[in-house]
Amino acid sequence: MPASPPRACARWSVREAVDGCVRHGIPAIGLWREAVAEQGLPATAKLVTDAGLRVSSLCRGGFMTGLGLGLDDNHAAIDEADALDAACLVLVVGGLPGISPGGGPGPGFSRDLAGARARVAEALAVLAPYAAERGVRLALEALHPVYCADRAVLSALGQALDLAEPYASEQVGVVVDSFHVWWDPEVLTQIAWAGERIASYQVGDFLVPLPADPLLGRGMMGDGVIDFGPITAAVEVAGYRGDVEVEIFNADVWATDPDEVLATMKRRFAATAG
Amino acid sequence: MPASPPRACARWSVREAVDGCVRHGIPAIGLWREAVAEQGLPATAKLVTDAGLRVSSLCRGGFMTGLGLGLDDNHAAIDEADALDAACLVLVVGGLPGISPGGGPGPGFSRDLAGARARVAEALAVLAPYAAERGVRLALEALHPVYCADRAVLSALGQALDLAEPYASEQVGVVVDSFHVWWDPEVLTQIAWAGERIASYQVGDFLVPLPADPLLGRGMMGDGVIDFGPITAAVEVAGYRGDVEVEIFNADVWATDPDEVLATMKRRFAATAG
Repeated sequence: MPASPPRACARWSVREAVDGCVRHGIPAIGLWREAVAEQGLPATAKLVTDAGLRVSSLCRGGFMTGLGLGLDDNHAAIDEADALDAACLVLVVGGLPGISPGGGPGPGFSRDLAGARARVAEALAVLAPYAAERGVRLALEALHPVYCADRAVLSALGQALDLAEPYASEQVGVVVDSFHVWWDPEVLTQIAWAGERIASYQVGDFLVPLPADPLLGRGMMGDGVIDFGPITAAVEVAGYRGDVEVEIFNADVWATDPDEVLATMKRRFAATAG
Repeated sequence: MPASPPRACARWSVREAVDGCVRHGIPAIGLWREAVAEQGLPATAKLVTDAGLRVSSLCRGGFMTGLGLGLDDNHAAIDEADALDAACLVLVVGGLPGISPGGGPGPGFSRDLAGARARVAEALAVLAPYAAERGVRLALEALHPVYCADRAVLSALGQALDLAEPYASEQVGVVVDSFHVWWDPEVLTQIAWAGERIASYQVGDFLVPLPADPLLGRGMMGDGVIDFGPITAAVEVAGYRGDVEVEIFNADVWATDPDEVLATMKRRFAATAG
């Protein structure tokens, strides 16, 4: 499996993050599978239930563009989302075959972008019924086109909606992540079109200039170039009433005391994106 | 005016580049305004005419997203394109106000993306008739979304076509640049839709991972992740019969002997994009 980015709360275990949410009055938590595995799946489920938190999403399944479609790992991710009663399982679909996230072309590399995209649809046809049987909602996440080759050949919200179209909206939804879609001239139209397909609204700012590793180009709301107002308004008008997730991959944020991060996050969220 | 990237043939003057094209049997040259200014406008026009070369494009006008719409500089660029008998003047429309290319937010910064895009349309309404009177074709270039904030709020070919739509295709065309549009799920459809609006086809590969400065993330064809076949075929089927420009911003390429670069370019072009 491809390497995952460090967790958003890299300095906190799941137990510490759950406690932190409670301490700061944050009612839901987005979980990463690696952190859940460290804490243990049943232990994590019990922790969040006992704390009265919702699991806003489990991150992440996907990486289904290789020849094997990543089915085994995705079945496991769906089972985990089920056990955690997560509102959705986020799917980062994967880039071109033979490129690992953040890396360059390696063995098995192929430039066949259309083929990679076709395999996402193929994998979804297997995974959507499996998820539906367990009451797990899949959430297709379009990533910024700068990640097209190495992380997600799903590059725009409209493309995610086209992929989701054959399925019921409670079975396959889409993620609206401000960092990934803010530039898209069609984004407000597509959010309106998405309607009840919106499974998650994630916020994080886009830093300019980007740092050397574009994965870490996310900032606290207000530190970048995104005008959150129109996007948040469109998501609300579209009918989304779920949790809003703040997702920031940023070396400085990770180096800051997590309690300070949560306090800043609440303040900035209220000022920009709430 | 915003800073421009170093010229593609950073080590050659216009005179040397013209001689190089002749020596390698390359029938057309794309010129950058800064290089033309160094050589002198009438001298450049005479050089290319005497060498029997076509000027495939003049790069670049644009940067019209600020409050003044950049009209004076764009009028000058149109006059220069006229003097050089360039097949088109490429327009890089500019990013958010108050961000210089490659830089971060500065004085006058605004997150109003919709407003910036509206000013592009407003400037075009002034510039298109001015260009048409001089027989100069404007060419709107969609840039990769990673440059949305600092170089071009025009982020997809479909968006360029929408902007061009009020004008005759010989008056306002569009650039298809492989580096900028390869990821776009709609690109082949939009190329077909563009038809005779295609004013320039530019090729250059997309390197993965991107170097620290994303501006320099272009590579010689075959060194990156782009499958040129389908894009080139679509451009041909759309009816484009103009010159194909190779445009590579890359520190290693610039550091290489230019004669070697041209020889490699011809070989790679024939193998991938031709």
